[in-house]
Amino acid sequence: MSQIYDRVALIGLGLIASSMYWGIKRAGLAGEVTGFARSEETRATARRIGLCDRVCDTVQEAVDGADLVVLCVPVGAMGPLAQEIAPVLMPGATVSDVGSVKRHVIADVGPHIPEGVHFIPAHPLAGTEHSGPESGFAELFDNRWCLLVPVEGSDPEATAHLRALWEGLGSKVDEMDADHHDLVLAVTSHAPHLIAYTMVGVADDLRRVTDTEVIQYSAAGFRDFTRIAASDPTMWRDVFLTNKDATLEILGRFTEELFALQRAIRTGDGEQLFDYFTRTRAIRRGIIDAGQDTDAPDFGRGKA
Amino acid sequence: MSQIYDRVALIGLGLIASSMYWGIKRAGLAGEVTGFARSEETRATARRIGLCDRVCDTVQEAVDGADLVVLCVPVGAMGPLAQEIAPVLMPGATVSDVGSVKRHVIADVGPHIPEGVHFIPAHPLAGTEHSGPESGFAELFDNRWCLLVPVEGSDPEATAHLRALWEGLGSKVDEMDADHHDLVLAVTSHAPHLIAYTMVGVADDLRRVTDTEVIQYSAAGFRDFTRIAASDPTMWRDVFLTNKDATLEILGRFTEELFALQRAIRTGDGEQLFDYFTRTRAIRRGIIDAGQDTDAPDFGRGKA
Repeated sequence: MSQIYDRVALIGLGLIASSMYWGIKRAGLAGEVTGFARSEETRATARRIGLCDRVCDTVQEAVDGADLVVLCVPVGAMGPLAQEIAPVLMPGATVSDVGSVKRHVIADVGPHIPEGVHFIPAHPLAGTEHSGPESGFAELFDNRWCLLVPVEGSDPEATAHLRALWEGLGSKVDEMDADHHDLVLAVTSHAPHLIAYTMVGVADDLRRVTDTEVIQYSAAGFRDFTRIAASDPTMWRDVFLTNKDATLEILGRFTEELFALQRAIRTGDGEQLFDYFTRTRAIRRGIIDAGQDTDAPDFGRGKA
Repeated sequence: MSQIYDRVALIGLGLIASSMYWGIKRAGLAGEVTGFARSEETRATARRIGLCDRVCDTVQEAVDGADLVVLCVPVGAMGPLAQEIAPVLMPGATVSDVGSVKRHVIADVGPHIPEGVHFIPAHPLAGTEHSGPESGFAELFDNRWCLLVPVEGSDPEATAHLRALWEGLGSKVDEMDADHHDLVLAVTSHAPHLIAYTMVGVADDLRRVTDTEVIQYSAAGFRDFTRIAASDPTMWRDVFLTNKDATLEILGRFTEELFALQRAIRTGDGEQLFDYFTRTRAIRRGIIDAGQDTDAPDFGRGKA
């Protein structure tokens, strides 16, 4: 893989940015990678573990001279950040981000992007329940999708460069518009997360079943919800607040369906339940066939 | 590990029974293991892969002379099965099961158990989304819980033997009464499964997002739901129909909480969301500390 950018600036040093750094190094995609995090502790950790070629104490220093600046902060923090870096953005540079919501980011960041700077929002569909600068690894994006969401007037050449970066990080790349992105993600990620959070909260609240019992006996079903529900609280708060409409629409559909199944249970309609479960099983098969998960039993957790 | 039973009969040869067989062999827990499945195809498969020392063509033949008979069929099929085998049960033998619901099984199976035969319901909290005779493996129960639910008058010595079997299969064993079992499982397993089934169904129904998109972009969140929602439809239909009250109670609590979070999203109450997500993250930490899951990122799916 050859070098695509001379200098990449990663702003915010959490799971995604740190994985990008290791992936950029793995493939030699950039000449230099600078990094900045608001928290002094995070910057110290980054320096200790060798995360970024140069960790800067100000965001302006990190961005200065970069031909790609990637905003890797929670969605709610992107607007003010863009405003802060705007004066030092190099003409011809590209600004991108990794936020889980796109319409809101475009509305918040777009107006601050100076003339002559390209703005190409992106969203890598990859993550784990861990967060922070020490949680990243080069392979995070391998074989995962990264969605580019070019805005009106996005330069095709700049978009091609960004695509090459993500492909170099191991991703498959697709493009779609912001509204559609936000709806697709509401279905595949945002609503499922809220549901998992809710179920975990219910279990914790239930006084007749102790937390110890919930935890000990969670092998089947509940355990998988807790993994989802362990993701970064700040990130997810911002996701729900900024993708409100699509998330609420999907949750509305969800409760409608759930009520129908609850009714089938209450009335003892075994046929309806069986048909429903048979259909969902086929969808799982489709995901395995599409290469987005392992067919190994129990996620290949290993046989321990 | 030494032999605990002379002859174990496994009735129904799916994931659980086949895993029990390989686990019994691994530890030498029984002199002989017979097996029976209603389907001729399943019996042929079992013979082909060497599942059970002896696969029988009638359930009576499999049960004849067994000092432990384990009912490994869907919960709804257990009553008729118990009635069928009752005449050939050996005095002093133990009948157990592996059903996910206990109150219903006790009500359906209990009346058919002859005088002098011990009935000790059990529920191993282990499984994968795969089913059938070829899905089992000896390590399935390792370090997982098995709940024994002795009924009134269960013989302590017979219970101790069954506990030894499950410990020999690698499980940790606990005892609780049937009502409490069914409530605990409604929280930790049954309600989460119904919710996962529902969410997968909603995604499939949504016409503006194609199935391909749902499948391709399901890395985050939704993918984990589909694993849960891929479990055996017959088994789960029976679970919901036979643990109706506890499941509906938990689902009621769930929708109540979900509505509260939906409202927080609608009104933009970021603090409530953040606090909720922070609390659920701590619960996840408890599960890892209790040794019921791996701390490896993304379930240790590996970095491919």
